[in-house]
Amino acid sequence: ADVQASLDSRRIAIDKVGIKDIRHPVRVRDRARGEQHTIATFNMYVYLPHNFKGTHMSRFVEILNGHEEEISVASFQTMLGEMAERLESEAGHIEMRFPYFIKKQAPISGVASLLDYEVSFIGEVRDGEPKMYIEVVVPVTSLCPCSKEIAAYGAHNQRSHVTVRIRNRGFIWIEELIELIEREASCEIFGLLKRPDEKYVTERAYNNPKFVEDMVRDVAARLNQDDRVGAYVVEAENFESIHNHSAYALVERDKEVE
Amino acid sequence: ADVQASLDSRRIAIDKVGIKDIRHPVRVRDRARGEQHTIATFNMYVYLPHNFKGTHMSRFVEILNGHEEEISVASFQTMLGEMAERLESEAGHIEMRFPYFIKKQAPISGVASLLDYEVSFIGEVRDGEPKMYIEVVVPVTSLCPCSKEIAAYGAHNQRSHVTVRIRNRGFIWIEELIELIEREASCEIFGLLKRPDEKYVTERAYNNPKFVEDMVRDVAARLNQDDRVGAYVVEAENFESIHNHSAYALVERDKEVE
Amino acid sequence: ADVQASLDSRRIAIDKVGIKDIRHPVRVRDRARGEQHTIATFNMYVYLPHNFKGTHMSRFVEILNGHEEEISVASFQTMLGEMAERLESEAGHIEMRFPYFIKKQAPISGVASLLDYEVSFIGEVRDGEPKMYIEVVVPVTSLCPCSKEIAAYGAHNQRSHVTVRIRNRGFIWIEELIELIEREASCEIFGLLKRPDEKYVTERAYNNPKFVEDMVRDVAARLNQDDRVGAYVVEAENFESIHNHSAYALVERDKEVE
Amino acid sequence: ADVQASLDSRRIAIDKVGIKDIRHPVRVRDRARGEQHTIATFNMYVYLPHNFKGTHMSRFVEILNGHEEEISVASFQTMLGEMAERLESEAGHIEMRFPYFIKKQAPISGVASLLDYEVSFIGEVRDGEPKMYIEVVVPVTSLCPCSKEIAAYGAHNQRSHVTVRIRNRGFIWIEELIELIEREASCEIFGLLKRPDEKYVTERAYNNPKFVEDMVRDVAARLNQDDRVGAYVVEAENFESIHNHSAYALVERDKEVE
Repeated sequence: ADVQASLDSRRIAIDKVGIKDIRHPVRVRDRARGEQHTIATFNMYVYLPHNFKGTHMSRFVEILNGHEEEISVASFQTMLGEMAERLESEAGHIEMRFPYFIKKQAPISGVASLLDYEVSFIGEVRDGEPKMYIEVVVPVTSLCPCSKEIAAYGAHNQRSHVTVRIRNRGFIWIEELIELIEREASCEIFGLLKRPDEKYVTERAYNNPKFVEDMVRDVAARLNQDDRVGAYVVEAENFESIHNHSAYALVERDKEVE
Repeated sequence: ADVQASLDSRRIAIDKVGIKDIRHPVRVRDRARGEQHTIATFNMYVYLPHNFKGTHMSRFVEILNGHEEEISVASFQTMLGEMAERLESEAGHIEMRFPYFIKKQAPISGVASLLDYEVSFIGEVRDGEPKMYIEVVVPVTSLCPCSKEIAAYGAHNQRSHVTVRIRNRGFIWIEELIELIEREASCEIFGLLKRPDEKYVTERAYNNPKFVEDMVRDVAARLNQDDRVGAYVVEAENFESIHNHSAYALVERDKEVE
Repeated sequence: ADVQASLDSRRIAIDKVGIKDIRHPVRVRDRARGEQHTIATFNMYVYLPHNFKGTHMSRFVEILNGHEEEISVASFQTMLGEMAERLESEAGHIEMRFPYFIKKQAPISGVASLLDYEVSFIGEVRDGEPKMYIEVVVPVTSLCPCSKEIAAYGAHNQRSHVTVRIRNRGFIWIEELIELIEREASCEIFGLLKRPDEKYVTERAYNNPKFVEDMVRDVAARLNQDDRVGAYVVEAENFESIHNHSAYALVERDKEVE
Repeated sequence: ADVQASLDSRRIAIDKVGIKDIRHPVRVRDRARGEQHTIATFNMYVYLPHNFKGTHMSRFVEILNGHEEEISVASFQTMLGEMAERLESEAGHIEMRFPYFIKKQAPISGVASLLDYEVSFIGEVRDGEPKMYIEVVVPVTSLCPCSKEIAAYGAHNQRSHVTVRIRNRGFIWIEELIELIEREASCEIFGLLKRPDEKYVTERAYNNPKFVEDMVRDVAARLNQDDRVGAYVVEAENFESIHNHSAYALVERDKEVE
């Protein structure tokens, strides 16, 4: 008796059903080195019509394990189609979240170190139409314009997260998206800084104060100009050094529904 | 020089700007005892028109601290209006998330104990039109129908979270929403169970197997019948006892746009 | 058949057995207002001799629920003794972690707001000898001495957590411990600051640069002088604004074993 | 001016100072496949004598980045020595925590899938004496003996974490430690199970009920017999399917101080 395949009479379709928070090693395409190994957390869902009692949860895991233990970016889109087909569904959704590393040069000494970013690929397919999203969480320094203005010396600053989710309509490197964001912060951050580098980043942030409002607007302005971006959400969150809460701002835009 | 109030020429409005993850003691209206004390985490945002450089972050905290150290449910709606007014914005958004306790009787012995739930109030106002949402995360037991069917004895079961967010169009107690959900699980859970109670909940779950698909449908069917609910999202997540990942399902419906 | 009370032949005693991560509303003694309501997460454990198969988990919850729904500080020590007695154990351990709020005045304007701290009470009893610990996590601003020294202007700063755990040998207010720590940071933080206050905290931090090493030493020096403190662990963690990792330092001392 | 290297007069040595929560890609030795790629989170600390003001934080990151972008297990011990030497300290401490994957065969169908475990290597060196620890967090199924005993049918079960930390005195594979633990649970868990496998694990757990007390004792008994284990801590935590809290037990033993 295949309980899942039996008929259902409640007349309620399920928008998303599947597996959540399953971890798997993956390979991701990397601009500098060809590819990098990382560990991803997946959510995989399909649409379930009202007349079926359940989906087949084990098939999701089979798809994940069928990709030879590691999943490249190219195979992500393939997986999306395969999932909809094997689960006999008209709609599917996959999210894959992973730490991604970029080797950065310190601004003065040029010393290299890795910095880690949280990246997600999100794919949705409905009636054969796929949509692909990339999300990056970029840690940066923000320095408060108000504090700089009113204080005789110094200015409070802090670590901030700028999170950007875009809907692609052309190929874009993870690295391009991250660099675009880092340029609009008070200063980008690094894993390793020598003393002349620390002088540089301290002064650069002081010369370049930004509110959360400024960061989301400046990043949005850049995304407005990029034709590969069909839609976006930009968020900035400052883990305020003078408070125990965050300052937060969000701008979103869908160029394709305007 | 009030930096925030200066003019901005980037021509990008900000959808949400404010403070995030600030904790505050609150009082919440309680069906059994009149009210209960708890601790809430707030997010408070307003819309910022394109021509202003920044919002006044300190005003959000003033509003929170102005409510005599503790905030009742009634004052939540007042706060929403007050926030839009004091920050001179046409739109505002407040979220308030808190642990909420209900005293439950064990099913056979009747022994009483508290159970904790995660509850959120979400309020949005746009052009003077407020919308109110309630979200509850309800921990329950789910027992797998497939496992029961195929095994000669026993059936795997586990803790699950059923999360429901509704948009209200009539008063509803937090307790009513939680009870509605608990009735549709394989079994509700308790803080304290004596031996006859443990026998009862074990057998009740075994007699009442449910997939995540069943739980979201059965809760959705109940919400469909309740006229106080204008829209809903129902999610179920099983922290599977035989896997290291979750089974997940979601149904959503907006009765007012059909 | 009481399975837990049956004999065990494996000859392995269990150092700690009980319940973990159970939430309960509590009242805590408060220097300014008499008491405050908050929500605590409890861990409650006893020692189990080698010859018993199991402990009685429901008794832990009964003890928690028996304290009239809210637990005062005084009853914390009572609970410790009661737990050892009702579970017939020679040793017991209770931890109770909760957000605690202090009303602070901004340094110049004097405007009041609440700040939240993470506080724990830890009690251990062995052969009738109780030991009590208090732990506080205090969010502060730290400003980097090296960055200030090498930069022509500005200095990176960030939110830091200073965590202190003491073993009491005399009564000490939570508030006293927090104030002692805040005085040794580059600057204390506040929920609400007006513009003159923001000028003050910015300049105060700049005038008072501290490494994590400085903060743990300066707090340790204060605890060395306080006879109510029998032992301590001091930790400082800076969520560096120029890196994506933390700087960290720890000093510990037990005055009673020297 | 090298601020960190200046003299300090407070006469307080710092037990641990360094960097915390820095992520780095690593390669770990793997019994089946030679090695596997994963992502580790590192904490790296040294002892700082009372007469120095600060340590050199950037050297920790240099050590991490100096190991050719990926760190093997062998190089972990080398790093420990290198850290103490480059930071001129008599004592050092490194923790490295990472997800680790094992390909498992389902018990009846033999179908293969990956399961993820949380593993840590911890190394300490003091006066040239290194100590190495391995910690694994193993997700398993636990089925309650009391529930089975009192119910006419069924028994509550749930996902549990068994955490074991050992101090090595001989080489042991991560895989060996995990298998030892999985054998002592009610049932081990899998990423992928076909219907005959689900029947097997359901019945196996029902035939093999265990309290948290049983799991820690049975694992401890196995570690007692293994001469490669110099000391251990065994913990079990059941995320109870009938409660909203955990059942928990801990046994620890140091064979070398008895």
